Amino acid sequence: MPGVSRFTLINGREADQLPLSDRGLAYGDGLFETLRVVRGKAPLLALHQQRLQRGCQALHLSLPSELEDELSMAAQRLGDGVIKLIVTRGSGQRGYAIPQHSEPSRIISASPLPDYPAAHAEQGVRLYPCNTRLALQPLLAGIKHLNRLEQVLARSEWRSGEFAEGLVCDQLGRPVECTMSNLFFYAGGAWVTPELTQCGVQGVMRDWLIASLQAHGEAVQVRQVSYAELLAADEVVCCNSLFGVWPVIELAERQWSVGKHSRQMQSLAKQAYS
Amino acid sequence: MPGVSRFTLINGREADQLPLSDRGLAYGDGLFETLRVVRGKAPLLALHQQRLQRGCQALHLSLPSELEDELSMAAQRLGDGVIKLIVTRGSGQRGYAIPQHSEPSRIISASPLPDYPAAHAEQGVRLYPCNTRLALQPLLAGIKHLNRLEQVLARSEWRSGEFAEGLVCDQLGRPVECTMSNLFFYAGGAWVTPELTQCGVQGVMRDWLIASLQAHGEAVQVRQVSYAELLAADEVVCCNSLFGVWPVIELAERQWSVGKHSRQMQSLAKQAYS
Repeated sequence: MPGVSRFTLINGREADQLPLSDRGLAYGDGLFETLRVVRGKAPLLALHQQRLQRGCQALHLSLPSELEDELSMAAQRLGDGVIKLIVTRGSGQRGYAIPQHSEPSRIISASPLPDYPAAHAEQGVRLYPCNTRLALQPLLAGIKHLNRLEQVLARSEWRSGEFAEGLVCDQLGRPVECTMSNLFFYAGGAWVTPELTQCGVQGVMRDWLIASLQAHGEAVQVRQVSYAELLAADEVVCCNSLFGVWPVIELAERQWSVGKHSRQMQSLAKQAYS
Repeated sequence: MPGVSRFTLINGREADQLPLSDRGLAYGDGLFETLRVVRGKAPLLALHQQRLQRGCQALHLSLPSELEDELSMAAQRLGDGVIKLIVTRGSGQRGYAIPQHSEPSRIISASPLPDYPAAHAEQGVRLYPCNTRLALQPLLAGIKHLNRLEQVLARSEWRSGEFAEGLVCDQLGRPVECTMSNLFFYAGGAWVTPELTQCGVQGVMRDWLIASLQAHGEAVQVRQVSYAELLAADEVVCCNSLFGVWPVIELAERQWSVGKHSRQMQSLAKQAYS
């Protein structure tokens, strides 16, 4: 379905600049979502909305009521591609105190789907073992807020195209996620994914995969994991809502081949957008 | 000295809107400084610049060379008031990776000095004991980056004008700072201020006071402190570069009267701008 491949809207109007007074810029005071759009719809919209709502609750933000209509209109106009949505607390005076009558800003940016190499999905990816560790902050864990310096720092640790993603651990050295995706590993006959109550972003593709596996009668363990456990796993994948699932074939000294469980995860991911 | 009381500049030009593609908005990928301007100059400029440089190093940002001239011209134009400077990584495509040829954005906002009640300095302030705790992240500690959701959350805990500031502890319950200022307490015949190697912002007024006390032959202890120790202190103050020093007269059940050591801190702070 052909559409307009790039446009930006602020509060429903065509615009590509934001007032300097916006608290999104001043403090990263807001949230974002990156939605894959297929044939004029965002198939995982409900999961994105759930995360947005959790984020709004955590930040004491009220979710703008116009959002749902604006998103579905933007998805229709785009056809196929990606919508990045940012919701900030809107304009405010200097100072951290939340303005009593703040009006959230809604920012929609539509663009084509990134051009990921097909080999990432087919042959798997190498993970760079990032030294940047995620701070433990239960008040902000799981939600997709705009304070993303940890991810910027982690992603800055490698430049080589050899690595498609990087593994990020928390301050205690426990694997949490990758820089832009979530992590699953298959061990002892079940999928395991790190719990995200202290840090990390609860990705919608992670939600989708957990629900899909459970619908197939397969238990998923959501819990703290150790680095040793990850290395000992039979199979490893990373996932997000844009690229779906990439099998992991290397992390530090450890190498994996792409197994049947990873292929099953890929086919579950594809069902999200079919 | 009368000047123009409000203006905003982006990269040296009059402007009040920022492109949506700026990574300052997308990820809080940048730094800021709040400079008090007196008679056309920013007296603590050197300390602000030192912190900016530390911040740039931490974020792998290059400090724009135009900044020094732009700041001094803006200070002259403003006369008396506050300059908020934001330096972001500039525009970038979607994705955390730092663009190879990023051009930092320089944003200057000039405004009048906030109208703090004179009673805060004269009679002292009550501190709200915030429940929000600062995550431990040595990679970002001390610098003044744009990821400020913890401060927004801490400051959102109270609305009553009864409290001029709030005490913020780290994840382990150790006092670190206040929401927009640093903390000192006087105990055992010396000033103590929490070390900021794991979290917190290293304020320029804190730097100034430490150096001033040392110049007067008074040792300052910069170290981890406990909540019990703070409560047991003889005197407590908070400080920043805009309001100088406020004596603290109440925190939770504990009350203090304003002592001579706090008055000395206030006079040292005033010397920064005399």
